[in-house]
Amino acid sequence: MQSFFPAPEEFGRHVIFGSTHITTLAGEHVQLSLADIPANGVIDWHDHPNEQMGMVISGAAFFQIGSESRTLHAGDMFRIPGGVRHKVEAVGGPVRALDAFYPIRDEYR
Amino acid sequence: MQSFFPAPEEFGRHVIFGSTHITTLAGEHVQLSLADIPANGVIDWHDHPNEQMGMVISGAAFFQIGSESRTLHAGDMFRIPGGVRHKVEAVGGPVRALDAFYPIRDEYR
Repeated sequence: MQSFFPAPEEFGRHVIFGSTHITTLAGEHVQLSLADIPANGVIDWHDHPNEQMGMVISGAAFFQIGSESRTLHAGDMFRIPGGVRHKVEAVGGPVRALDAFYPIRDEYR
Repeated sequence: MQSFFPAPEEFGRHVIFGSTHITTLAGEHVQLSLADIPANGVIDWHDHPNEQMGMVISGAAFFQIGSESRTLHAGDMFRIPGGVRHKVEAVGGPVRALDAFYPIRDEYR
């Protein structure tokens, strides 16, 4: 059984797109990913079949999702359906965002 | 099609357990819920078939999940499988947490 309050070793830790650190936690169906994008960091255009929904925790980031774009700040939410290309760029400093993926991305466990 | 950057009217706004305000956003499969628990606020024992995973954004809260309990602070994650009873109490001031539910809770759209 998965623990309700995960121990440190139950988290996944990865560096994506060269500079963004993610800390992930998989449940049964949903996976959380806490993304720390450094100042000037870029998560370049990509897509995945998994649905991604998230919220900016701190800082500001310029989001491009499909053909829409917007600068989001702390407390702003976004939703990225599976298969939709997106890109995220830190604006004016580091950014922290919390994402939820469904289904779980095995490569980020 | 759902907008990637939701307009204010696309969010759900509810008051649960008497004092906790939640702001929700449903995607295709996953629903985010930003919960603001006031100082001394309590989300009393309850359960739901939906999986719930989340992270404390600010403040501290005493979580009881099944037979486990822990005080969580900003950045701490938790996971509540479907059907597991849980209770959350604000500790020392207001608490903000971001939850992800799967599947979507229609009553909180």
